[in-house]
Amino acid sequence: MKTTISAISTAPGIGGIAVIRVSGPETFAVCEKVFFPANKNAIISEAKSHTLLLGELRDNEESIDEVVLSIFRNPHSFTGEDVAEISCHGSVYIQQRILQLLLANGCTLARPGEFTQRAFLNGKMDLSQAEAVADLIASGSAASHRMAMSQMRGGFSNELKKLRTQLIDFVSLVELELDFSEEDVEFADRTHLKMLVTEIEKVISRLSGSFRVGNAIKTGIPVALVGETNVGKSTLLNVLLNEEKAIVSDIHGTTRDVIEDSMNIGGVTFRFIDTAGIRDTRDKIESMGIERTYQKIEQASIVLWILDCTQLSEHIEWLTDRIEKKAAGKKIILVFNKIDKIQEEERDVLNHLFDQFKGDRIYISAKNRINTKELENALLNAAQLPDIQPDDVVVNNVRHYEALENALESIQRVQEGLDNGLSGDFLSQDIRECLHFLGEITGQISNDEILGNIFGKFCIGK
Amino acid sequence: MKTTISAISTAPGIGGIAVIRVSGPETFAVCEKVFFPANKNAIISEAKSHTLLLGELRDNEESIDEVVLSIFRNPHSFTGEDVAEISCHGSVYIQQRILQLLLANGCTLARPGEFTQRAFLNGKMDLSQAEAVADLIASGSAASHRMAMSQMRGGFSNELKKLRTQLIDFVSLVELELDFSEEDVEFADRTHLKMLVTEIEKVISRLSGSFRVGNAIKTGIPVALVGETNVGKSTLLNVLLNEEKAIVSDIHGTTRDVIEDSMNIGGVTFRFIDTAGIRDTRDKIESMGIERTYQKIEQASIVLWILDCTQLSEHIEWLTDRIEKKAAGKKIILVFNKIDKIQEEERDVLNHLFDQFKGDRIYISAKNRINTKELENALLNAAQLPDIQPDDVVVNNVRHYEALENALESIQRVQEGLDNGLSGDFLSQDIRECLHFLGEITGQISNDEILGNIFGKFCIGK
Repeated sequence: MKTTISAISTAPGIGGIAVIRVSGPETFAVCEKVFFPANKNAIISEAKSHTLLLGELRDNEESIDEVVLSIFRNPHSFTGEDVAEISCHGSVYIQQRILQLLLANGCTLARPGEFTQRAFLNGKMDLSQAEAVADLIASGSAASHRMAMSQMRGGFSNELKKLRTQLIDFVSLVELELDFSEEDVEFADRTHLKMLVTEIEKVISRLSGSFRVGNAIKTGIPVALVGETNVGKSTLLNVLLNEEKAIVSDIHGTTRDVIEDSMNIGGVTFRFIDTAGIRDTRDKIESMGIERTYQKIEQASIVLWILDCTQLSEHIEWLTDRIEKKAAGKKIILVFNKIDKIQEEERDVLNHLFDQFKGDRIYISAKNRINTKELENALLNAAQLPDIQPDDVVVNNVRHYEALENALESIQRVQEGLDNGLSGDFLSQDIRECLHFLGEITGQISNDEILGNIFGKFCIGK
Repeated sequence: MKTTISAISTAPGIGGIAVIRVSGPETFAVCEKVFFPANKNAIISEAKSHTLLLGELRDNEESIDEVVLSIFRNPHSFTGEDVAEISCHGSVYIQQRILQLLLANGCTLARPGEFTQRAFLNGKMDLSQAEAVADLIASGSAASHRMAMSQMRGGFSNELKKLRTQLIDFVSLVELELDFSEEDVEFADRTHLKMLVTEIEKVISRLSGSFRVGNAIKTGIPVALVGETNVGKSTLLNVLLNEEKAIVSDIHGTTRDVIEDSMNIGGVTFRFIDTAGIRDTRDKIESMGIERTYQKIEQASIVLWILDCTQLSEHIEWLTDRIEKKAAGKKIILVFNKIDKIQEEERDVLNHLFDQFKGDRIYISAKNRINTKELENALLNAAQLPDIQPDDVVVNNVRHYEALENALESIQRVQEGLDNGLSGDFLSQDIRECLHFLGEITGQISNDEILGNIFGKFCIGK
């Protein structure tokens, strides 16, 4: 017997209104005990699905609030069960009282994500769509929003469904041969099979490959700010973080430090990493700081290498060498700061000095906000994120990525097997494995632990 | 022509779901531009009132979210206008996108309280009921919640309506006499009128008198903690503020300091005021601190006078004298702290010392949480708040209180006028004035400035 669950579904705190959700077989029975319609003739158990009832919530004789009750009858609800949503006045006290009232009358407090988990278990969506619901709620930029929308609407699921259908057709043929193994027949034309597997490998490979972009969109593109001490790194960081842009809110971390370093520029989230100033030193402690700077360069996708125009270090060649080595393969943007303090000729000299440098170069004054807009554009260019279209399938979930990588390995073993004329039973085993991993993504294969991990990260009330 | 307004109505931040409200003549026209029902046959303009539509919000081609749309047709809505409520996924990004989408398609951003203001202007509620909506949302205790509910449901309005009806009947008779002034008739029997006015004066006086209680419930009962330095005031304050009680959230003030001092004990909000330790001093600066302590005692309704059992001051008589003088007319609770550090006999000595003291006395150890529960009960006793019943009318609004006091003055002038045989035209003027002040409360008399003041304090989206 399934429980009837309840939770406050709107953001915590005081608002104009708040919504408390109830889902499960006893939803309307519980509501009938505590909700009294303003229209005396209205009866909850007879109300049609997708209708609203105005009325009063009462705890015995005490009136708790005047509310609007939304009725969704199974299976036409988010969870696929009977659902009621109580829209009440948004005082924290009232929200708590109503929740307590529902719990006292037969509801169980919903665990985080339990409504969505039920939607999954009741077949309203597959697992990757359920995960997209959480991503959608956490989305803080246009790109991450679009990606989550596409996934929630089943873009990814459809791709996987196609793959599975092809693989199942394939494995059926191979397994049919096994039934007639003594007769040594080949129902599955090997040349045709090879083409099919190559095709499948390509799709899985493409999906898995999209994770780099998907993850960057979701968690932000890491940008390291490096340079010697006092070149203006902190000033620049503040400029990048403060100029009329929405701070990406508490999505990426729990400490304020982390939050303040993530910014949405032109619809793309960047994660700015400040570093200790690099210099040639024999001091042991300072060396450790610089070692950490190198590590941060390695974590970054883009390196902003900041120089003070007015005071070029004598170690500049040594420094250039170090940074280029550590940032090999990454985008480096050379940022000449304090450009307002030097003359045109000096700028030419500077330029000449960095003749060998191949990356972008920008001349700015962080303090006086000269050319900082250009720097932002350079960052957007360097991000090199393809423009995600509403129907694009981009993988952004580590769990999906890992399953895809495993599926890729399996399908590559199938390819090798075909090349080496491996027998049907071995081929079949690898194909089944590939199907297993793809099934993990959509939730056809799942267990309590996996579900617990996934839905435990949801917010309560969803 | 009225505008169509929109705002996010749920608490700010990320939640499972959020609700965006639209109200005004163009509500459904705006929705039709951006909302596409999942059921292709559904048409917003033909949807019945109090129904729910599932669908998609689109910004041109881009899908913003899958949402549920609640339809309320005028006059059957909160504002009395056409209202739509959009229930969307609770990401901050989505909330903002939807609001922008609505504004781009003809809505105006709602001012704080504008939905409720429209409800008032459209005759869905009177002004005191509208104010109760804000009180309800801010209510943080059982008592303040009950008070706001009673007011919102019209308890206060009905009392005022009765008063106004009686007064209007009265003034009609008096003014009828004026029309026949040359004939010197008396339509209104003066004895009967006196009785009526006495009755009215009583009711206004009772309502006005209830403000002391109402205000204490709403803003919290001020409790001053006084005593010498090092007697354990701060420890006790922490115990009172931390023991498994919900901190009354950001209702009473804006700074964290103020918030942390308000606590809900047994359904009653107490506002704890810590004070500087009192002692007999000639140091000028310290004297100023002590002067402030005296002021805080004056602001308090209850004084917790804390003594260290183990170390009774040599100035105890002087201190007793000062505190009793300053706290004259207030409830004083004598709190003997560190009771676990002394023997039974010492306690008897202490008791004997305070033979003359008439208030409650409690023996506690704040540090070891001995008898702190008893102290809370003593506080609840001292609060002496009558138990507010659902139908009780208690005034808790300064604006209402001031209007009632003015009405009281007018009606008392009518009483005097009747006693002194004042002529009908003077009587009539005072009655009209009384009617005016009562009308201010319910909003029959109002102006933009008054409304601006009232609704400007609402949260946005309500």
